Amino acid sequence: MAQQHLDPTDPAAGPSPTLDSARAGDTPVGDALAGYLRAQATEFLRALRLHRETGPAAAGTEESVDAARALRRSVRRISGSMHTFRPLLEADWSEGLRPELAWLSGTLSMENAYACRLERLLLALHRLSGAVFPAQTGVAAAVSAAGTTAGPPAPPPTDRGNLTVGAAKAGALLERQLTLARTRAHSTALQALGSSRFHAVADKVAVLASEVPLTATAPGADLRPLAAAAEERLTDAVTALPLVTAGSPYNAEALIHGLSPDPSPHPQDAPWHQVRLLLRLHRYARETLYGTGAPIDVRLLTAGQALDRHRDASEAAAAAASAARTPRIAPATAYALGVLHADQRHEVEAARFAFQQSWQKQVVST
Amino acid sequence: MAQQHLDPTDPAAGPSPTLDSARAGDTPVGDALAGYLRAQATEFLRALRLHRETGPAAAGTEESVDAARALRRSVRRISGSMHTFRPLLEADWSEGLRPELAWLSGTLSMENAYACRLERLLLALHRLSGAVFPAQTGVAAAVSAAGTTAGPPAPPPTDRGNLTVGAAKAGALLERQLTLARTRAHSTALQALGSSRFHAVADKVAVLASEVPLTATAPGADLRPLAAAAEERLTDAVTALPLVTAGSPYNAEALIHGLSPDPSPHPQDAPWHQVRLLLRLHRYARETLYGTGAPIDVRLLTAGQALDRHRDASEAAAAAASAARTPRIAPATAYALGVLHADQRHEVEAARFAFQQSWQKQVVST
Repeated sequence: MAQQHLDPTDPAAGPSPTLDSARAGDTPVGDALAGYLRAQATEFLRALRLHRETGPAAAGTEESVDAARALRRSVRRISGSMHTFRPLLEADWSEGLRPELAWLSGTLSMENAYACRLERLLLALHRLSGAVFPAQTGVAAAVSAAGTTAGPPAPPPTDRGNLTVGAAKAGALLERQLTLARTRAHSTALQALGSSRFHAVADKVAVLASEVPLTATAPGADLRPLAAAAEERLTDAVTALPLVTAGSPYNAEALIHGLSPDPSPHPQDAPWHQVRLLLRLHRYARETLYGTGAPIDVRLLTAGQALDRHRDASEAAAAAASAARTPRIAPATAYALGVLHADQRHEVEAARFAFQQSWQKQVVST
Repeated sequence: MAQQHLDPTDPAAGPSPTLDSARAGDTPVGDALAGYLRAQATEFLRALRLHRETGPAAAGTEESVDAARALRRSVRRISGSMHTFRPLLEADWSEGLRPELAWLSGTLSMENAYACRLERLLLALHRLSGAVFPAQTGVAAAVSAAGTTAGPPAPPPTDRGNLTVGAAKAGALLERQLTLARTRAHSTALQALGSSRFHAVADKVAVLASEVPLTATAPGADLRPLAAAAEERLTDAVTALPLVTAGSPYNAEALIHGLSPDPSPHPQDAPWHQVRLLLRLHRYARETLYGTGAPIDVRLLTAGQALDRHRDASEAAAAAASAARTPRIAPATAYALGVLHADQRHEVEAARFAFQQSWQKQVVST
């Protein structure tokens, strides 16, 4: 059943450009997996070379930012398609590499995550202060220019003239805390890229770029059942989401437990984060079968963006709550952080609504 | 144009039970206004008698609560229909009485308003704490039983076991501040009811119960043009509302300026409060024309309830913000008040969405 959704020759699948493209009439087999992994490994090596060439001197330049992003992108794709098509890959090799890629992906993503979190929170503070805020020339630009680079953190933005004392102090506190976290993540990433652990990963990926260790029967094996299983895991996880509630605007669900004594991340967010990962695996499986050049499914993209926003808002809300637990802060600072926390939890709720709407469309139109 | 909406014989008006009832075929004239005012004045006197009979000893009983509510209800209706049908009433008499009714209405409503505000905020704090909260047996019941009476304030609810320190302290602070305000409003209302100013109003209303001072031409005058003008004022005010924004879920409009340095009530709420008053005047005008016994228009009721919720949430949010400006409060208290403020501002946004939805239905179905 799930398989038929991925079958490009199935007329019931309707006029989906992604499904019809690249290999219409062909059955995508193991060779396509090998080709995809080779291409992503090559991309990894290219990004790594670029990253090393630009070096610390080029930190913050467009090239350096692009290189870091390309590195993360290729690691996610190699790791994802190795996961989905695991039975077609040599077990020892694949079980050895996958945790290393997960480590690398996690290590490389933290610096950018802290930078984006800070940018999101400062933009929200400005919006909540009713300040006329030059979004692309002030804080946002300063933070985003610095945020995705390997360079030293940008100086804190200074245009707090329009903020109240509480909002300004909250902004300064978040800046201090998240910039420190970002600086640490930056050092950790640099250390990781110089470690023997990383060189072992890079060596394995270099091998992957020329020769993919498929199992004996894999080259001619149909990829579609494994891709369909990945899609089914996604569909099952979406079905388990509280979509009826999410589709009812202003359900006030996301802020429940907003003042709960439990300081851990909201447990209600976890299934949504899980769907986000499964959606990504589904997208990479489609890329493996039909090529990265095939037009991307706009609906999958929209759903994915909603879940990215969900994750970002969830983590930003947690950062605001965590900052509010800093000892000896002023009541006005704490108040602003409370407003900010609730604002981001409502962003979480809004993102769930957006996901429900895009997913609904998807079900109706296929 | 607006008149035709109120014309019960107009086939374009569609199957509205309210419009077709009571006087279909008749033209409602000044005599109906006199009848309505007499009935409301009689109701005022009945409620006042009941209120005095129950006295301080019966404070908090169901009778006492009903009497106070009936008093407020009749004052609003007398005042509202005097406003809409002003040209049909003797000018001197009417200009003398109307400000006195406004004073009385304001004075009598404050105690109940503070009690409802506290109840709303405590319920929200419990919801935000994720506490399992017996809504009708705990805080809500305690507050609502005490809130609408003329008796001494109820003791503060004590089931804060499930709240965090911040939420519990915020709840205690709001309780102190709003209970104090309520106690003062209670004293003010008692003083008002014993004042010579009130006795003068009561005397005038007693006269109204037997003889309504209409102008010479009023008894046979068509009431519909004045009722239509009231409806037109409502329609114009609704048209000026940002309904497109309000109808787009999670527009994040209500929390803009949530941290603004300006401590005054949100200026963006004012047009909605104004529509709430105009909707009430429109409802009273319909009652005057077609009788209080005629079935109420469910859609008007729903729209009115959304605007009541808007007003209540707006004032609750302001109370939370105001409590956060109390000197020397703990940061955890301030944080909880910030979350609470933002929560209530989102209630404001949700209420606007609900109004937009009900109003849309109204336009489509008539």
